[in-house]
Amino acid sequence: MTARAIVLVSGGMDSAVALAEARAAGFECSAISFAYGQRHVQELAAARRVAAAQGVADHRIVSLDLRAIGGSALTADVAVPKDRTHAAIGTGVPITYVPARNTIFLSLALGLAEVVGARDLYVGVNALDYSGYPDCRPEFLRAFEELARVATVAGAEHDARFRVHAPLLELTKSDIVRRGLELGVDFALTHTCYDPVERGSSVLACGRCDACALRLKGFAEAGARDPIGYAKSK
Amino acid sequence: MTARAIVLVSGGMDSAVALAEARAAGFECSAISFAYGQRHVQELAAARRVAAAQGVADHRIVSLDLRAIGGSALTADVAVPKDRTHAAIGTGVPITYVPARNTIFLSLALGLAEVVGARDLYVGVNALDYSGYPDCRPEFLRAFEELARVATVAGAEHDARFRVHAPLLELTKSDIVRRGLELGVDFALTHTCYDPVERGSSVLACGRCDACALRLKGFAEAGARDPIGYAKSK
Repeated sequence: MTARAIVLVSGGMDSAVALAEARAAGFECSAISFAYGQRHVQELAAARRVAAAQGVADHRIVSLDLRAIGGSALTADVAVPKDRTHAAIGTGVPITYVPARNTIFLSLALGLAEVVGARDLYVGVNALDYSGYPDCRPEFLRAFEELARVATVAGAEHDARFRVHAPLLELTKSDIVRRGLELGVDFALTHTCYDPVERGSSVLACGRCDACALRLKGFAEAGARDPIGYAKSK
Repeated sequence: MTARAIVLVSGGMDSAVALAEARAAGFECSAISFAYGQRHVQELAAARRVAAAQGVADHRIVSLDLRAIGGSALTADVAVPKDRTHAAIGTGVPITYVPARNTIFLSLALGLAEVVGARDLYVGVNALDYSGYPDCRPEFLRAFEELARVATVAGAEHDARFRVHAPLLELTKSDIVRRGLELGVDFALTHTCYDPVERGSSVLACGRCDACALRLKGFAEAGARDPIGYAKSK
């Protein structure tokens, strides 16, 4: 029987590549995505496209309303910063930080892992994130594995060990673009922008928020063309 | 300034006593409750009553739909066991086990702790639970504290330590009844039953599910009267 992995799929390019890595490693994958009061339903639409394109038959969308907790530009009504320099983007905790988000998302993925009998979780976190997000660091991932061992019936009664795979952890954005292209990931299906623009019937990335800036830089450094549309010319 | 604690309030008697303990320890309390696809909205109504009666001004209700994950009688469509002996109740993982529930709930409480600047979390887990629920054991609580340290900005940048208080951990149900009465907890406001019965305009506990059986035994052993109504005469 093929082992099953749970892959956190956000609709962004990183988790699309993490899913491709899990499949390349031979796992049958269950995808999990979160409707967490995001400003943009585009993220979830992209998550559905990404999972379907990679042949994932089991995709769970868990609704949770993080607005009741507050504290972030992605869930509360705070302006998304625009046109920041790459130097500025790299410093401090981003305004888009959602408190304990990866802890919350991995916990829900762990619940699904218990239900479907998986021991492997895949997340698309990478080095770029962990300058600003504490819950993207390797020590966080190891602490979560230890928690999973004591938190679950599988761990407590059958000494099962859970593994949190972060195959992009040491990669730059351009590495991720290259690796994704190698694995056949269709980046046209992915969504990155924090503040997308509707134009007619299509949705364009703003090209100016931190997420767009990092994505565009990644494609440029990889010498590849980003297939999605931008409101601001590249 | 009074230190703030986050208290997980379910509407049950244990978390009502845990909240009273947090207040007795001098904390100003934020309560957090979860609308997680429970069969019964009575739990949340009770949580609101309990928090209000203990003067909690900040009560967050976080909606999350655990049905997308499945795997438990409390969230999926599985019959609740009735009329089990106390010996049978005490063995194995209960059918009402929700995979990774305390991990999920504590993660959300941790997110709120980050937002409001709290370092102390209170949960009403106790020894009766941890025969069957791995995520009620002391080693789970310690692992979560370690995770919280590395998962948060406060921990990563300011070396803050989080503490998960479980003041009922070593108590039996009758100890909890006694301690609650000492602290002035109004148990009439709490809800315990897995399968309540509507009779006219009132809601009665079934008196036959595992939760009712343990509650009734606790009151009997404490020599106290349970103030809530039961469909089955006691």
